[in-house]
Amino acid sequence: MKETENRDDPLVIGGQAFDSRLLIGTGKYPSDDMIPRIVAASGSRIITVALRRVDFEAATDNVMQHIPDRMQLLPNTSGARNAEEAVRIARLARATGCGNWVKIEAIPDNRHLLPDGYATLRATEILVKEGFVVLPYINADPVVARQLEDAGAAAVMPLAAPIGTNQGLTTREMLRIIIDEIKVPVVVDAGIGKPSQACEAMEMGADACLVNTAIASASDPVAMAGAFAAAIAAGRQAWQAGTGAVRTIAAASSPLTGFLYEGTSDS
Amino acid sequence: MKETENRDDPLVIGGQAFDSRLLIGTGKYPSDDMIPRIVAASGSRIITVALRRVDFEAATDNVMQHIPDRMQLLPNTSGARNAEEAVRIARLARATGCGNWVKIEAIPDNRHLLPDGYATLRATEILVKEGFVVLPYINADPVVARQLEDAGAAAVMPLAAPIGTNQGLTTREMLRIIIDEIKVPVVVDAGIGKPSQACEAMEMGADACLVNTAIASASDPVAMAGAFAAAIAAGRQAWQAGTGAVRTIAAASSPLTGFLYEGTSDS
Amino acid sequence: MKETENRDDPLVIGGQAFDSRLLIGTGKYPSDDMIPRIVAASGSRIITVALRRVDFEAATDNVMQHIPDRMQLLPNTSGARNAEEAVRIARLARATGCGNWVKIEAIPDNRHLLPDGYATLRATEILVKEGFVVLPYINADPVVARQLEDAGAAAVMPLAAPIGTNQGLTTREMLRIIIDEIKVPVVVDAGIGKPSQACEAMEMGADACLVNTAIASASDPVAMAGAFAAAIAAGRQAWQAGTGAVRTIAAASSPLTGFLYEGTSDS
Amino acid sequence: MKETENRDDPLVIGGQAFDSRLLIGTGKYPSDDMIPRIVAASGSRIITVALRRVDFEAATDNVMQHIPDRMQLLPNTSGARNAEEAVRIARLARATGCGNWVKIEAIPDNRHLLPDGYATLRATEILVKEGFVVLPYINADPVVARQLEDAGAAAVMPLAAPIGTNQGLTTREMLRIIIDEIKVPVVVDAGIGKPSQACEAMEMGADACLVNTAIASASDPVAMAGAFAAAIAAGRQAWQAGTGAVRTIAAASSPLTGFLYEGTSDS
Repeated sequence: MKETENRDDPLVIGGQAFDSRLLIGTGKYPSDDMIPRIVAASGSRIITVALRRVDFEAATDNVMQHIPDRMQLLPNTSGARNAEEAVRIARLARATGCGNWVKIEAIPDNRHLLPDGYATLRATEILVKEGFVVLPYINADPVVARQLEDAGAAAVMPLAAPIGTNQGLTTREMLRIIIDEIKVPVVVDAGIGKPSQACEAMEMGADACLVNTAIASASDPVAMAGAFAAAIAAGRQAWQAGTGAVRTIAAASSPLTGFLYEGTSDS
Repeated sequence: MKETENRDDPLVIGGQAFDSRLLIGTGKYPSDDMIPRIVAASGSRIITVALRRVDFEAATDNVMQHIPDRMQLLPNTSGARNAEEAVRIARLARATGCGNWVKIEAIPDNRHLLPDGYATLRATEILVKEGFVVLPYINADPVVARQLEDAGAAAVMPLAAPIGTNQGLTTREMLRIIIDEIKVPVVVDAGIGKPSQACEAMEMGADACLVNTAIASASDPVAMAGAFAAAIAAGRQAWQAGTGAVRTIAAASSPLTGFLYEGTSDS
Repeated sequence: MKETENRDDPLVIGGQAFDSRLLIGTGKYPSDDMIPRIVAASGSRIITVALRRVDFEAATDNVMQHIPDRMQLLPNTSGARNAEEAVRIARLARATGCGNWVKIEAIPDNRHLLPDGYATLRATEILVKEGFVVLPYINADPVVARQLEDAGAAAVMPLAAPIGTNQGLTTREMLRIIIDEIKVPVVVDAGIGKPSQACEAMEMGADACLVNTAIASASDPVAMAGAFAAAIAAGRQAWQAGTGAVRTIAAASSPLTGFLYEGTSDS
Repeated sequence: MKETENRDDPLVIGGQAFDSRLLIGTGKYPSDDMIPRIVAASGSRIITVALRRVDFEAATDNVMQHIPDRMQLLPNTSGARNAEEAVRIARLARATGCGNWVKIEAIPDNRHLLPDGYATLRATEILVKEGFVVLPYINADPVVARQLEDAGAAAVMPLAAPIGTNQGLTTREMLRIIIDEIKVPVVVDAGIGKPSQACEAMEMGADACLVNTAIASASDPVAMAGAFAAAIAAGRQAWQAGTGAVRTIAAASSPLTGFLYEGTSDS
């Protein structure tokens, strides 16, 4: 059912259309062997991988061998602390055959792992000119999102909460503004802990969500991947269906006038 | 996919198993003609109808003719202001062929339309003894829920917010206690405005949700019915899959040790 | 300053006027010796005490000896599991010289310690007829609050969250309805964990708050009592001053038209 | 009482100590005549004013004439769209006798009025070198806050919500991180709509709050100024007093063991 719906409503990034709005990661699973089942259960078409995790010489135990060919690879620059490191990792990723997509992560601190907006902007400017399809990971800052869009980013990836926290949409109001203001796809990334939160992001009009920790840290990651896929499809469908207004005063589901027994003697 | 999953995880109320955890209503739709499509899109197996809306003599335009035969009918006592009126409506419903299920609504005020817990309890005690399968609609009060369970209620239906408001899970903490404490199914009813909210209720461990206004007041009610069905299935699946812990400090998706370029001259 | 303000805006319960809107308790302090300082710092005029804690024969270590004479004593029926026990404790309190005020607590379960609304209502009906000034402790149920008001309760005391949890205004939306609908004073009781939460309750229009655990469990209970007093006075003053509207779109504090440098060559 | 407390706990910015943690503005009041009364009721010692509002040649109706001499003036660069404009306004403010404090506002868009973090950083770097006491207004971005601290900012002023919206602490989780990580004073600015929200910010450990719209848009701005002053003092005091832990399970205020009537025949 999901695929049928999405056939008419694809996610388009960098000129390519995808029939899933759930992006997934490769980190934190009990074993990399699980990745193909996560991919299948999630229905995802885009997967991010830290170049650091790729060992191109090792014959075995390379995360890449677990990723199905049909997936769009989204190498990320995890570990980069500034624009220069991010650019270098992106170039290396392309040079070693990982394609020209890149998720920019430029993270100067090791405690809260929050991205540096300006470093991300500079790296984006450089890499866009070199022909990369750039998806920058940012704090939920509408001004930075606008600057990245102007710089040619293929999408923006604002965070919901610090990575790995499962806290949910703590940046809800700024996400709302980004969704309203930005024309390129908005992919909510980091901090989403439960399918209901991804569903809400989609109801707000987000174009997609990237979920890694919440799937990997579930008791049953494969089942959780399926739950996220369904919740994201539901949220997208609800956004299209147009949610009703919120009221402060109750309204009966059935008309209260004309009560069946009104006026009878024993009521 | 939903039905397959539910085949192994049915909702059981009153000894009957249902392969959907979304209960729907019949009120507020632009036209009763829409009901069969709502039923189909929702996958629902239980539908509530106000006896007041049933005109047993009218040859046409009777809401009952729009309800597919396979649906479990759940007549409700909407319009009753106390236990006596609720009991009388329930008996009439059974006498006129609507079966022995009843959702008790005993609502003394016309502004916020909130149920009277004690009147609901008295009506439940009477109707359970008469062989009804009783589903009482209550405020999210764990003490009342317990008393209703002890009185033989087949399920309890605590509200999320005043009916028709689309406010969502305003009673979240009391719902959490009810879910933890009550053995019979907990069906969250009233006030759910968006699929993400129904999804969250299911992630918390609710057994089912009843949704009417949020579907009927959507721009596209049929699509919204489908969105709720998917979100509820997702929430149930997430509950089964076991959500990961919420953290206050970030945790990288990829290990931060062993950065690929650490120590190289130009980093 | 607080007293000056309150002189014109007293809290009136049972025909008596009080120049503080903070009610306090006597439980959980490191030592009963601390109570006089809590009373002083809080500015409170009403204090609740569990009759169980009162040992009328003991010459020493009786909580009563720590309560200043000018305080209005509000004996509570803590430990009562139903209406009969609550009534009996109230009568005993009056017989032993604790006065005719009573806070009814009728709590059937030991885990979540939530009150039984109907038992509370029955006890209230009995005790009002016997001349008590009755302040019933209830879940945040507007229907029960209305029934208690009709039964002659001098105030209603809906909970914010389960007692002792410090969770804050989890019942916010139901409190809002109670405040709108009920004419007798609404005293928000139980679950308030921080002064900001008491402040918010007052901004919503609550008449007073009862705070015990949040003060007693603070690192410095005396300072925390003062903080609650100030926050409650602030919330009351804000409610009187009329809060401004919430907007979804930003509005500059200073006019944005006529920028000083607009049109200059180097801007 | 507030001043006494603050005498031992001053707010220190730029080497100066202030006995109030409420900063106020000059915009949006029904009349500038009201400013002295707002100053008095708020107890504030720091006031921000848009240089655009200052007409140095006009003999009358200049906002400056309404500001008491003892106030620390905090000129802001409202209207600046980038670093260069902000720097120029700051220099002009100093040249025209407004002192060497400056609140940097660099706001590129007219709809949501959100600040540009990098432009703010550049302006800060320039103005710190020129001897200004710089208080930058920023989105709640911990990375930008850290960079500003490193650049010599005297305080950081992260927003709670878009300016003028009265939405409250929508950036709560990022504020929490900023408060934990930043050594210079954190002044929560913009979007605070009610005293309870300012109180909560202080309970979280913020050093001060700046409030303008919420005071100016109240029905009674002078009373609201007093309410904010009391709420901020309460929140500060609560932070010092150490709030108790939040629990998920109830805990009685009085011990439940040893119920007075336990075992008696009629219980």
